[in-house]
Amino acid sequence: MALLGIDLGGTKLATAVFSSEGLLQHEETVLLGNRRDAAVGALILQQVSRFLDTARAASDPIAAIGVSVPGICHRDQGVVWAPNIAGWDAYPLYEEIKSIAPHLPLTIDSDRACSLLGERWQGRAQGCNDAVFLAVGTGIGAGIMTGGQVVRGAHDSAGAIGWMALDRPYQEKYTACGCFETGASGEGLAKRTRELLAQESGYSGPLRHFYPEHLTAYQVFDAYEAGDAIACQVMGEAIQLWGMAVANLVSLFDPEIIILGGGVFGPAVSLIPAIRVEACKWAQPVSMSKVVIESSALGSQAAVYGAAYEALTKLAIEHV
Amino acid sequence: MALLGIDLGGTKLATAVFSSEGLLQHEETVLLGNRRDAAVGALILQQVSRFLDTARAASDPIAAIGVSVPGICHRDQGVVWAPNIAGWDAYPLYEEIKSIAPHLPLTIDSDRACSLLGERWQGRAQGCNDAVFLAVGTGIGAGIMTGGQVVRGAHDSAGAIGWMALDRPYQEKYTACGCFETGASGEGLAKRTRELLAQESGYSGPLRHFYPEHLTAYQVFDAYEAGDAIACQVMGEAIQLWGMAVANLVSLFDPEIIILGGGVFGPAVSLIPAIRVEACKWAQPVSMSKVVIESSALGSQAAVYGAAYEALTKLAIEHV
Repeated sequence: MALLGIDLGGTKLATAVFSSEGLLQHEETVLLGNRRDAAVGALILQQVSRFLDTARAASDPIAAIGVSVPGICHRDQGVVWAPNIAGWDAYPLYEEIKSIAPHLPLTIDSDRACSLLGERWQGRAQGCNDAVFLAVGTGIGAGIMTGGQVVRGAHDSAGAIGWMALDRPYQEKYTACGCFETGASGEGLAKRTRELLAQESGYSGPLRHFYPEHLTAYQVFDAYEAGDAIACQVMGEAIQLWGMAVANLVSLFDPEIIILGGGVFGPAVSLIPAIRVEACKWAQPVSMSKVVIESSALGSQAAVYGAAYEALTKLAIEHV
Repeated sequence: MALLGIDLGGTKLATAVFSSEGLLQHEETVLLGNRRDAAVGALILQQVSRFLDTARAASDPIAAIGVSVPGICHRDQGVVWAPNIAGWDAYPLYEEIKSIAPHLPLTIDSDRACSLLGERWQGRAQGCNDAVFLAVGTGIGAGIMTGGQVVRGAHDSAGAIGWMALDRPYQEKYTACGCFETGASGEGLAKRTRELLAQESGYSGPLRHFYPEHLTAYQVFDAYEAGDAIACQVMGEAIQLWGMAVANLVSLFDPEIIILGGGVFGPAVSLIPAIRVEACKWAQPVSMSKVVIESSALGSQAAVYGAAYEALTKLAIEHV
């Protein structure tokens, strides 16, 4: 029995076939290019249909489909809000996929919930009922499980941790995407670095090669590892904010594990000890002494694993 | 059928009989006085035993017992950690009550979870599956329900929101009870006011009558309502912190309702509009636009209601 996992990102679409034991058998990634709106939906349908055909031809048909989206799926209606895909304010993805695969169990969920569930199925959170996946990439979000149940909220929007208030007083720049995300997302790191470089006319460090338009969090991180003063200041501030956010997750959820994942925490994994030191200052001490903080085991594949795991779970429920 | 609800606080013990429909039939409060350790347990047993006898004599016997404690109950062992009761580091309360009422379903839970469940049973959160009770009194804690399930954490310590990091950089004074509690609990308000009064030698406002040793959050609140400058500064800071904490609950949990309760929010209920304005600046905007923020309907009785409700729930489970 095979499961189809789909991970729609802001710039690409990953499609993968898994065994019910969680073995990744085949994966394919397609760039979205300049597709928008219904063209993105059409690309998903094309991939689904091709993977269904191939699996059928190989006599190992797909038994269920799970999709991860870069936003929110309103589960009662099956429509998706994805801020980075033009035209996806309330995209009827559930209905579209059902139109070509009416008999297969289908799930659609946020990338943050899927990433967490991927880690729970085949990654670092196996066996955990209280776990958090803190995803720091272009933006920041959290997939949260408590008592074995994913935290969804009353309107499917839980886990919007990029909006966490961490730094008084309020500043206008937080309006677009929240205090934590402004200070400590990939975008935020690059922006803060550009701010500081603009003030530093005599700067001669490695970041000058990228400033202003080619500067990303990756270069800031490289420069930090090389000891560049501006990069050290930016990363120092980010470590404080990441530590405070981890502390707040610990105090509120008392989890077994917090997994740091997403594009920024690929390279920034070596920062975990420093983040832990910062979190220890702030968090409820008993919960802090018990929590494990680790990097993602599945990296950029966490969401596609989780999508397939949700498909498997739905299959199990529908076959009870 | 009657339910026995017990609310152990830091200074008093409330015992109440409820009908299964949630009607409070009789309540009695006893001060702990200078009781500590096993003497507090003995007082609880004495009350339980007397209420069981009375109910039996009235031919409406108690069918289940629920207890709320000012701390944490480690549910696997039934032992209670209650920081404000001397000797209660791991008090075997479950075993003690079972010894005098072996056949009755018994639950013990934290006051924050009980307060939330009380409001869900007979207060403001009726019909809600995603709700938070933010209790601000001497300390600060939160009872949290998501998807109809109380958030407990891996070690029964979830909801320790008094430890929430809200204000960079870290200060030594946060070590004892956390950043949020230091700044915005009843104790915190009084302490901050004393700090400011100590710096203000020419102060002639209403707080001078209580300073230093008789100053509590209640006087600060009264002086704030009378327009006293120092009280206004202290309350202004607290409103910022309460607003940020509410915002963080909204962004993380996307709840239907946040209930403000506890000793401080008795008098401070008129502050809710100002807290909402502050929270709106910080929180995820869609979730913020949908959440209701209200004061507790049950006030200081929320926890005893919740204790009885947990007893009722356990009774229902054991009789399935």
